[in-house]
Amino acid sequence: MPSPTPSAPIQFTFGLWTVGWSAQDPFGDATRAPIDPVESVHRLAELGAAGVTFHDDDLVPFGASASQRDTIIARFRAALEATGLTVPMVTTNTFTHPVFKDGALTSNDRGVRRLALRKVLRHVELGAELGASTFVMWGGREGTEYDGAKDHKAALDRYAEGLDSVAAFIKDRGYAMRIALEPKPNEPRGDILLPTVGHALGFIAMLEHGDIVGLNPEVGHEQMSGLNFTAGIAQALWQDKLFHIDLNGQHGPRFDQDLVFGHGDLLSAFFTVDLLENGFPGGGPRYEGPRHFDYKPSRTEDLQGVWRSAAANMETYSLLAERARAFRADPEVQEAMRASGLDELAVPTLAEGETVASLLETEGDLGVAIEEEADRLAARGYGHVHLNQLALRHVLGAA
Amino acid sequence: MPSPTPSAPIQFTFGLWTVGWSAQDPFGDATRAPIDPVESVHRLAELGAAGVTFHDDDLVPFGASASQRDTIIARFRAALEATGLTVPMVTTNTFTHPVFKDGALTSNDRGVRRLALRKVLRHVELGAELGASTFVMWGGREGTEYDGAKDHKAALDRYAEGLDSVAAFIKDRGYAMRIALEPKPNEPRGDILLPTVGHALGFIAMLEHGDIVGLNPEVGHEQMSGLNFTAGIAQALWQDKLFHIDLNGQHGPRFDQDLVFGHGDLLSAFFTVDLLENGFPGGGPRYEGPRHFDYKPSRTEDLQGVWRSAAANMETYSLLAERARAFRADPEVQEAMRASGLDELAVPTLAEGETVASLLETEGDLGVAIEEEADRLAARGYGHVHLNQLALRHVLGAA
Amino acid sequence: MPSPTPSAPIQFTFGLWTVGWSAQDPFGDATRAPIDPVESVHRLAELGAAGVTFHDDDLVPFGASASQRDTIIARFRAALEATGLTVPMVTTNTFTHPVFKDGALTSNDRGVRRLALRKVLRHVELGAELGASTFVMWGGREGTEYDGAKDHKAALDRYAEGLDSVAAFIKDRGYAMRIALEPKPNEPRGDILLPTVGHALGFIAMLEHGDIVGLNPEVGHEQMSGLNFTAGIAQALWQDKLFHIDLNGQHGPRFDQDLVFGHGDLLSAFFTVDLLENGFPGGGPRYEGPRHFDYKPSRTEDLQGVWRSAAANMETYSLLAERARAFRADPEVQEAMRASGLDELAVPTLAEGETVASLLETEGDLGVAIEEEADRLAARGYGHVHLNQLALRHVLGAA
Amino acid sequence: MPSPTPSAPIQFTFGLWTVGWSAQDPFGDATRAPIDPVESVHRLAELGAAGVTFHDDDLVPFGASASQRDTIIARFRAALEATGLTVPMVTTNTFTHPVFKDGALTSNDRGVRRLALRKVLRHVELGAELGASTFVMWGGREGTEYDGAKDHKAALDRYAEGLDSVAAFIKDRGYAMRIALEPKPNEPRGDILLPTVGHALGFIAMLEHGDIVGLNPEVGHEQMSGLNFTAGIAQALWQDKLFHIDLNGQHGPRFDQDLVFGHGDLLSAFFTVDLLENGFPGGGPRYEGPRHFDYKPSRTEDLQGVWRSAAANMETYSLLAERARAFRADPEVQEAMRASGLDELAVPTLAEGETVASLLETEGDLGVAIEEEADRLAARGYGHVHLNQLALRHVLGAA
Repeated sequence: MPSPTPSAPIQFTFGLWTVGWSAQDPFGDATRAPIDPVESVHRLAELGAAGVTFHDDDLVPFGASASQRDTIIARFRAALEATGLTVPMVTTNTFTHPVFKDGALTSNDRGVRRLALRKVLRHVELGAELGASTFVMWGGREGTEYDGAKDHKAALDRYAEGLDSVAAFIKDRGYAMRIALEPKPNEPRGDILLPTVGHALGFIAMLEHGDIVGLNPEVGHEQMSGLNFTAGIAQALWQDKLFHIDLNGQHGPRFDQDLVFGHGDLLSAFFTVDLLENGFPGGGPRYEGPRHFDYKPSRTEDLQGVWRSAAANMETYSLLAERARAFRADPEVQEAMRASGLDELAVPTLAEGETVASLLETEGDLGVAIEEEADRLAARGYGHVHLNQLALRHVLGAA
Repeated sequence: MPSPTPSAPIQFTFGLWTVGWSAQDPFGDATRAPIDPVESVHRLAELGAAGVTFHDDDLVPFGASASQRDTIIARFRAALEATGLTVPMVTTNTFTHPVFKDGALTSNDRGVRRLALRKVLRHVELGAELGASTFVMWGGREGTEYDGAKDHKAALDRYAEGLDSVAAFIKDRGYAMRIALEPKPNEPRGDILLPTVGHALGFIAMLEHGDIVGLNPEVGHEQMSGLNFTAGIAQALWQDKLFHIDLNGQHGPRFDQDLVFGHGDLLSAFFTVDLLENGFPGGGPRYEGPRHFDYKPSRTEDLQGVWRSAAANMETYSLLAERARAFRADPEVQEAMRASGLDELAVPTLAEGETVASLLETEGDLGVAIEEEADRLAARGYGHVHLNQLALRHVLGAA
Repeated sequence: MPSPTPSAPIQFTFGLWTVGWSAQDPFGDATRAPIDPVESVHRLAELGAAGVTFHDDDLVPFGASASQRDTIIARFRAALEATGLTVPMVTTNTFTHPVFKDGALTSNDRGVRRLALRKVLRHVELGAELGASTFVMWGGREGTEYDGAKDHKAALDRYAEGLDSVAAFIKDRGYAMRIALEPKPNEPRGDILLPTVGHALGFIAMLEHGDIVGLNPEVGHEQMSGLNFTAGIAQALWQDKLFHIDLNGQHGPRFDQDLVFGHGDLLSAFFTVDLLENGFPGGGPRYEGPRHFDYKPSRTEDLQGVWRSAAANMETYSLLAERARAFRADPEVQEAMRASGLDELAVPTLAEGETVASLLETEGDLGVAIEEEADRLAARGYGHVHLNQLALRHVLGAA
Repeated sequence: MPSPTPSAPIQFTFGLWTVGWSAQDPFGDATRAPIDPVESVHRLAELGAAGVTFHDDDLVPFGASASQRDTIIARFRAALEATGLTVPMVTTNTFTHPVFKDGALTSNDRGVRRLALRKVLRHVELGAELGASTFVMWGGREGTEYDGAKDHKAALDRYAEGLDSVAAFIKDRGYAMRIALEPKPNEPRGDILLPTVGHALGFIAMLEHGDIVGLNPEVGHEQMSGLNFTAGIAQALWQDKLFHIDLNGQHGPRFDQDLVFGHGDLLSAFFTVDLLENGFPGGGPRYEGPRHFDYKPSRTEDLQGVWRSAAANMETYSLLAERARAFRADPEVQEAMRASGLDELAVPTLAEGETVASLLETEGDLGVAIEEEADRLAARGYGHVHLNQLALRHVLGAA
């Protein structure tokens, strides 16, 4: 187990659309007025955030003229400079306008696909200008409600074409930018293409320019499928594809709740933070990007509630990071990890130079001997529950 | 749309463990006596099945001596010859014995991992002898209940080591055999590694011998995560990784029900059959393997009920295949597919020779013009609901 | 088994908000223009509907002056008269306006509760004027995202106070009207009070005026909790509380999809129709109200798609009703039902005059004797899978 | 808000079947030897438990002779006396034996129903002898996999007959005992009758002897339906029906996990403990029964792990109880509760003597005035997120 070292200040970032959400939902009108992005930049800076992120339309209204756009961006840049906030990530809105109702890069309508591609590319350019190193693509409209309404082979071909086109564009322009896909199983579409971290990892392996395409997993999106978020990002990390992350809270399979980080499954949030801050127990790839919150202040909140909720995300993460450091440093935990066999799992199954053929030869045939060996090995207790209880004690600040 | 052609008789296969299940569940004792595999071979042949599949322990009890094993296998081979049934797939049981309680290829205990590997390899040999072209690996115990009890990086390393070892063994021996991973999200473990079709596709891309590793998706396993099964196998097909399939029924996120195929989500079963029998609407990779049922006769059934339930799987599949052929051949459906834009999705988004740079140049900047174009394109109605209703009419035999 | 008799034409009704939905969702703007309610009345009449239903705000915009209101209602009445459509049910919108963000009858703010009550009562009056016999109350905002933010005892007290107030008002005015609660587990609130049919049944038992309070269960709402809809309405019927019904389609636990009836779980839809049209196999309380569709035409549809989707609901229901009648009339099905023991379940467990004391005396003690009896009874096969396959054949029109 | 007072030691109880589970699951053989119940009594006493509970078959094997039974019970009583442990609850196993495969009190076979009733009644007698005040009935086999295989009206009639028979027996014998139903949505049956706390509350209202029938809700069972457990027991308390409770952990809709309490949704566990220990914020009915754990030590554990897991349940509950007391006592929390309007919700919506008629008169008609009032009231922010963050700080021991 590597001993934890004091870490640099945690880099927290927020989407402008999070605090800026005016709280309209499928059954209700907005409960808050929109917030000027410049105001958000200043408030988030005061609260201790390190950066902001945004969709094209969050900053510049769709259809704005070139001069309107320039004015808005200049004003926004001034706010960034005044506060020191960075823009490590940008993303394109290819879901709000009715034109995207059957998809953007995979719409059955070719005209829509071309329009979507242009909209994405334009925002890649702005992102690059602002220094964003990650370009998130959430294909929320890429999918269908009805299995018969989409030719999945064609849809995946078009999706790959679209992504490779964007990636090639990034390379051609020489931007220091990578694409991060954001999986989601459903909502707003009945079923969305690339519904989980796994499906996106599989898809990326098929791309021509997959080397600069990775993932932006969101806590709630994986939990909407009942999947374990920490296990999901662990696989993405193992495949060197965890390019960015969206932190929030969710209560399992239901609509997308976008709660404050930790306000959903708290123990799971602890292990997510533990992985992000401390890495795998036995070492390996680390996540180096910002801790990005993609949440929504509840519809019941006024402006004070909005800013308090933003602060709550950072507070919870920081507290869990502290708990996770203590957890890893605790000798009792380290002993329990050894008893559970965590370090033993890092040892290759075959000895150096051993082949399966030699394994078969030296260990002999199946039969009574292997049955006896199985019974002997089966007697081991792993102590996993005890180790989990130690984690829980640390989460509760009771260790 | 390619016109459907009369197809050869459908090749249905069953696991010996399906009809042979003695109906013990977590809260109840067995309600039926075990069935002699030889009896199952004969009965399934009578019902019209083309083949059987099995775990090592389904046929030869774990710990049997070499001579017991030989006797059992000889008797089983005789039944195959007598009935003409084939064994297109075999699989290893690495989950029942207590030794696998913390996993097999990814157990925290190295001794267990080595034992599991030997058990798998031995069964690869038997499978090859019996002519099986697919070796299914369901890693039901590869996972954990507690995030802290498994080093996911090490676990995925060991999983890859194990699979690459088996694949290398197959290649070394010159077996005409491919490995098919069977994903499942949970049960019996709290969270299982490679929980969905997608995660397995991502993982395979990391293997050294991934060329002979693909998937054996199971209807119910994907639906336990609330995922769309047809969309899942479509992606696997698109990635040329649909090596085998497990058909059954399930009612969404809950315990693994293993109902008769079609006794869960019937419309979804229709579209699954449509894809398997008719391929993608615009053509592309086809599934060529057996239609394999991995279901359990309900615990309320006696032997008559068991055999009737086996027949029900084949009847339902055959009826849906008939409905799916009529669906594709129906001119009204073909017109509705065109109206929905299914064929248009096969057309590349960029014209031949067109680049994104030229797209941006010729189409001009974002602004009022693109907004107007978006509004114009947004007016299109896709008629997806109508197309789905046509499918439903065909399912109901009312078209 | 009672023999099925030819039935009167099925009374189909639609909410004005269903076909009239302008297709705005949490991630996208409206894709269709609003439809004039008068237009909807005429189109639905042409399609064969028997009635329409509506929220107050669907017809009269919130805040309209008395004279505006009168004009709108007069025009609406004229359309009803012209078409012969009835208004068997009305309901109040206590969820769209921001004032209801923390609830209506259970808002933590007493002023909001009083305002909500007035809004409800006013619409009870309009409903009564239009001849509505059912007043649906969907408490979509009655709930919370955070367990600490609501005193559940106080909330249930206020909910009961509110409902008893409305019920008392109905009785005082002498209206021939009953209240039907519509349960939903979540969305828009994180957790909604009275989340299922069951919770509402329990709650109603506590009301002073519970005699005129029953249920309006919605297919998708129960399925969002993974519950069996047909079993749910069966219990409501058994308790004489199935006052109204909302038919639509859903794919299990996820956001509220409001698909066309039958476009979700088709087998479940069949058994729902079977219960509504044919009653319990052994007789008992019957549902006598309208077959009401509460669905949303998908966002991909234009106006043609809207009306086709409305027709699809009625077509699917009618086809399933036909299948269900044939199912019940089929002698093979009747035989399978007997084999399954459906009629035997109607026989009381204790004989007439038998008491548990006499049961214990005559049958003797537990011990070897009871174990043997258990083993003997356990041998019975119920043939449930066969019966289900017969149902599936009928659904597929293949019986 | 009532100020919390120092409480008596918490009474923890365990089912003998929890620590005694030999860890067989649907895919694996037992990993542990059975534990002698007398051993469990002694070990649980040492760990600080106050009582044990059991199914008839947990103690006396099904089919045991009268003398075997007497010997076993005498030995068990001696252990209770030696340790001071009580038996506050007992329950009958009507699910393990194959005879119950189609149900017990609602089996389609009348012979099975009669046998089940006898088995239940005999255990009621033993429970009464041992001083149990609660008789839990989990109808795990009462249900079906197929909607057509059960006449729900008849099934609910038989269920009611069975329960009223048992309740009448209890009253006749003069036992100081109440029945507590334990709802569960599915597993082992596809769908179980009375799937949630709500359905059971509705059902109880129909019983003749419902006055002594209440609930034994289990954390995981409600969470398997995605329902909020704390909200569920709050409604049961409000209806004076929370007779007993089963505490454990679960990760949402999936198989029944029976994890250690708190090892599932930790924040939810906190609010459950807060309600059990501190009652509703504004006062009302309190839960007075034992804190009963119905969990399973994971299959990976040996005997040391078993006893540690038992202790973990009590430790977690005790820590959360401590946190909950501090939460309620914290002036900042009390202020936030007031800001959220928790106390205001206790105020009746109508003033004393006010009727809805007078409300309508004094407040005037709907129209511009009510719209303005709505806008004014809508401006309020409830601060629910802040209050939840205060709770989270207390859970983390960081307040």
